[in-house]
Amino acid sequence: MSDPRKNTRDIFPPTGSEITAKSWMTEAPMRMMMNNLHPDVAENPHELVVYGGIGRAARTWKDFDLIVETLKNLEEDQTLMVQSGKPVGVFQTHKDAPRVLIANSNLVPHWANWDHFNELDKKGLMMYGQMTAGSWIYIGTQGIVQGTYETFAEAGRQHFGGDLTGKWILTGGLGGMGGAQPLAAVFAGACCLAVECNPDSIDFRLRTKYLDEKAETLDEALEMIERWTAAGEAKSVGLLGNAADVFAELVERARAGGVKPDIVTDQTSAHDPVNGYLPQGWTMAQWKEKRETDPKAVEKAARASMREQVAAMCEFHAMGIPTVDYGNNIRQMALEEGLENAFDFPGFVPAYIRPLFCKGIGPFRWCALSGDPEDIRKTDAKMKELFPENEGLHRWLDMAQERIAFQGLPARICWIGLGDRHKAGLAFNEMVRNGELSAPVVIGRDHLDSGSVASPNRETEAMMDGSDAVSDWPLLNALLNTASGATWVSLHHGGGVGMGFSQHSGVVICCDGSDDAERRIGRVLWNDPATGVMRHADAGYDIAKDCAREHGLNLPGIL
Amino acid sequence: MSDPRKNTRDIFPPTGSEITAKSWMTEAPMRMMMNNLHPDVAENPHELVVYGGIGRAARTWKDFDLIVETLKNLEEDQTLMVQSGKPVGVFQTHKDAPRVLIANSNLVPHWANWDHFNELDKKGLMMYGQMTAGSWIYIGTQGIVQGTYETFAEAGRQHFGGDLTGKWILTGGLGGMGGAQPLAAVFAGACCLAVECNPDSIDFRLRTKYLDEKAETLDEALEMIERWTAAGEAKSVGLLGNAADVFAELVERARAGGVKPDIVTDQTSAHDPVNGYLPQGWTMAQWKEKRETDPKAVEKAARASMREQVAAMCEFHAMGIPTVDYGNNIRQMALEEGLENAFDFPGFVPAYIRPLFCKGIGPFRWCALSGDPEDIRKTDAKMKELFPENEGLHRWLDMAQERIAFQGLPARICWIGLGDRHKAGLAFNEMVRNGELSAPVVIGRDHLDSGSVASPNRETEAMMDGSDAVSDWPLLNALLNTASGATWVSLHHGGGVGMGFSQHSGVVICCDGSDDAERRIGRVLWNDPATGVMRHADAGYDIAKDCAREHGLNLPGIL
Ligand SMILES: NC(=O)c1ccc[n+]([C@@H]2O[C@H](COP(=O)([O-])OP(=O)(O)OC[C@H]3O[C@@H](n4cnc5c(N)ncnc54)[C@H](O)[C@@H]3O)[C@@H](O)[C@H]2O)c1
Ligand SMILES: NC(=O)c1ccc[n+]([C@@H]2O[C@H](COP(=O)([O-])OP(=O)(O)OC[C@H]3O[C@@H](n4cnc5c(N)ncnc54)[C@H](O)[C@@H]3O)[C@@H](O)[C@H]2O)c1
Repeated sequence: MSDPRKNTRDIFPPTGSEITAKSWMTEAPMRMMMNNLHPDVAENPHELVVYGGIGRAARTWKDFDLIVETLKNLEEDQTLMVQSGKPVGVFQTHKDAPRVLIANSNLVPHWANWDHFNELDKKGLMMYGQMTAGSWIYIGTQGIVQGTYETFAEAGRQHFGGDLTGKWILTGGLGGMGGAQPLAAVFAGACCLAVECNPDSIDFRLRTKYLDEKAETLDEALEMIERWTAAGEAKSVGLLGNAADVFAELVERARAGGVKPDIVTDQTSAHDPVNGYLPQGWTMAQWKEKRETDPKAVEKAARASMREQVAAMCEFHAMGIPTVDYGNNIRQMALEEGLENAFDFPGFVPAYIRPLFCKGIGPFRWCALSGDPEDIRKTDAKMKELFPENEGLHRWLDMAQERIAFQGLPARICWIGLGDRHKAGLAFNEMVRNGELSAPVVIGRDHLDSGSVASPNRETEAMMDGSDAVSDWPLLNALLNTASGATWVSLHHGGGVGMGFSQHSGVVICCDGSDDAERRIGRVLWNDPATGVMRHADAGYDIAKDCAREHGLNLPGIL
Repeated sequence: MSDPRKNTRDIFPPTGSEITAKSWMTEAPMRMMMNNLHPDVAENPHELVVYGGIGRAARTWKDFDLIVETLKNLEEDQTLMVQSGKPVGVFQTHKDAPRVLIANSNLVPHWANWDHFNELDKKGLMMYGQMTAGSWIYIGTQGIVQGTYETFAEAGRQHFGGDLTGKWILTGGLGGMGGAQPLAAVFAGACCLAVECNPDSIDFRLRTKYLDEKAETLDEALEMIERWTAAGEAKSVGLLGNAADVFAELVERARAGGVKPDIVTDQTSAHDPVNGYLPQGWTMAQWKEKRETDPKAVEKAARASMREQVAAMCEFHAMGIPTVDYGNNIRQMALEEGLENAFDFPGFVPAYIRPLFCKGIGPFRWCALSGDPEDIRKTDAKMKELFPENEGLHRWLDMAQERIAFQGLPARICWIGLGDRHKAGLAFNEMVRNGELSAPVVIGRDHLDSGSVASPNRETEAMMDGSDAVSDWPLLNALLNTASGATWVSLHHGGGVGMGFSQHSGVVICCDGSDDAERRIGRVLWNDPATGVMRHADAGYDIAKDCAREHGLNLPGIL
């Protein structure tokens, strides 16, 4: 029997202003699911894998086809239900209800671990949705560039007086998300040495201009870093190797008086010990084969190597070098392997991102369904016009226009928050209505956002009131987005940090230029970030309370 | 500082056809939350406890008051968000959206255990919502009577040729749910001996006519049972004692040739080892005190006693006596205490209930907001008229009218499924419209229902395809009910079987006689049971697939 998940088809979303579905409200999710599997977007589209280990867009190829077919026939008052990447039902709802409702990878807590998930996955009963893979709003590596840039820039402000010239960042992983690191570092003014074990990933980042150079040996890579930092140039190099080996080696050298990185982090797919992390001493081919034949052995070896890598990171931290977990749960894995001080260094959210979340600011993004880059250029201009005083946003848009190669349908990411998101949405809807844009756009965000996630080792690490693990919040977020009229809404488990460690929700809304869409956009793009402000205000953050007051939020039990 | 959860106020919902909120759509959740705390409804209303261990209606008394106040002022296009019993936000939505969205007790899986919950609960950050306590559709013990009756009747059919005359059922627990057991047994034609450690609970059941007699000693109770069974009379006795002691003692006697029960089950609150189960050898007073001062010690002792009780139940099972777990997770507790064969006897769902779930049949219920019992009498008559051929339903309604004392707002429960629920709802809405009923009614169901729960030790135990732990389904159910226009929707964790073991959703819709309500009722009361049929069809049950075909459900990846 052939594997229902493997195929050699190349998927390209339709482009242009003609639709084959019955309305843009159903054409939009169809194009966006296809876009997630676009050869320039997905990490391994032939196996339906979009990014983040085994984050998929559909459970099987049959399910993919059925979703497309169902969306094409869906009426404007019907709703498609998707259960872990499988289309399971079409129900009568109403025009203001979402057209698609999605639940991916959710497991009753006592069984919410990789072992049980893998068992179900193998039986064809589940799919890992990661965050934006299964909720159809992944937009390629760009999606993460700005967040990573904001993080590095904030680290620069906190530790280096705002100037990263001559500094270098050590990291691991150049996958779908991690691949953004070198470019973001360069944007922030720093050099970057990224250790990646897969030569294809390195070449992918070179080709898409996220990475400047590659190296086969540590000496070669360090020679470049030394040259660039000395010259005050911000450039990046991808080093072929195992991050556990290289991090440990660099600790040795630093101890011996050698060169030291200025910032240390990591974005290997440590959240998934079977599929996401190459064990030390293994070749890529061995790894691939053993994942099929003996996943337990892979997991054991991978966990042991992660422990090595985190031990090295703890050493850097002890040397006074700013070191952060970049949201892949690698500290938890090392802790479970017996490394007691694994949580010595913080996660990136409490370290750098939480103040933004308190204002509902997070990875807002939009995508031109036309496929026309000109549409994004026009929305970029509109953003500058809407927010003339926001310098950071202007600088970001300039850099992005210059350096970011589109992947698949042209898209833009721009971290903005409550009070700004709905303005952008309404303006874009107006541009669709008056023909400035050649087709509708969709607006969404990552699940890593202000009000949409409970993830105690990442987004909700070290909350002020200790409510890290309370997941009522993302569930309420999904229910409210559904009630507000988003075009599709999703509820996922295990994204970012793996099974058992997170619950989160996604939302996308289509701006088709209609009055109906206008009303929905006004509600959804206000309410969605407002839930984040609410959640952080409830936890006691003054920034969030002030933001809520300033925007007149009605938070009965909180304000 | 006074305990924000303790008070001496008595809460009575307003009755009659005048409202103080801005519409019935907000008056309804307000009355129903209050009704959950009605002195005749709740187990411990002064501490906000409705039923099922510590299942609450609101987090604190301050939150209760704030919810009431907020609902009174809520507009018909606004939505109130409730997070673990606390009103946290009011947002702009639209008329067809729910007026209240609720998430209770949800925790990220890795932290989803009683220890972490209790820590948060103590800090005032959480509330246990059980199933219908925190979702405001508990209707007193009646809510469970019919389900228990259906279960005992099915056991009678499977094991005793449909005739339970002269048979007796041994069980434990006469709390909010468990208190239905003696009456349900009598309805099914059997006698019942229920062991209960709290004299107040016994008296409560006597007073509300759920129980016929009480006894202080086992001999006294057995004497009654022998007399009644010999005479072919169906009557019930509540025995004051500890179920673990009594079950073990009865095993001894049975081994020694003494009397044997014909069916064995239990409904102590074993799902909550700190608050729900009296350890052997402890007095009620000791238990109460230790729960405050040393909850860990209570838990340890309670778990050890549960092990004893389950060991006795396994013995009965081994003697060939039909023995079932009645959904309180007591087998899991015993297993964790080292009783390896704890799961020898089945849960009641796979044993007796699943075939009903396959047709979307479950504990449907409605409540007269007028407070007038006459309104329920009229709906009872309407049900008979709507379903003239359903003999079981007619028999049930007759018994219920005769024997069930209303608690709080008059209500009725009636297990019906896909294709019937929306008919009842539309008919009731019509009766409100034309003035037959004196005020609107609300319609809801337990979270223990066909499409609304994932609970591998109870509702989804031993699913045909092994998908017991997949919780995408209840999440989709809640999203779809929100999209369909239910009046309030809830998502809970840990109901019935305790923290870590279940995820489930609730739904209530208000029939105010309007055209808008008619459209919403048509959607919600069709879609909600349809998700149950879908879930069971996906798992491979033929009954569900046939039911889906018969009702023309559109299930793309399934049929
Ligand atoms: N912080 C954030 O904002 C954020 C956002 C998304 C994802 N993440 C997390 O970051 C991680 C990476 O995400 P991704 O989408 O890039 O995943 P991915 O699976 O696409 O990429 C991971 C990369 O790591 C490489 N790798 C694996 N083991 C290695 C080793 N031992 N040494 C060197 N390289 C190794 C792989 O070859 C691959 O290229 C995930 O855990 C994800 O959950 C973080
Ligand atoms: N099967 C179902 O349909 C269903 C439905 C709802 C609830 N339940 C489960 O049934 C259990 C009972 O629910 P409830 O609402 O009646 O709870 P409850 O807390 O109101 O009542 C439990 C009763 O058990 C008694 N009790 C505790 N320990 C005892 C012991 N050792 N010996 C004798 N009596 C003891 C208590 O005094 C109390 O009266 C819960 O675990 C609940 O989750 C099952």
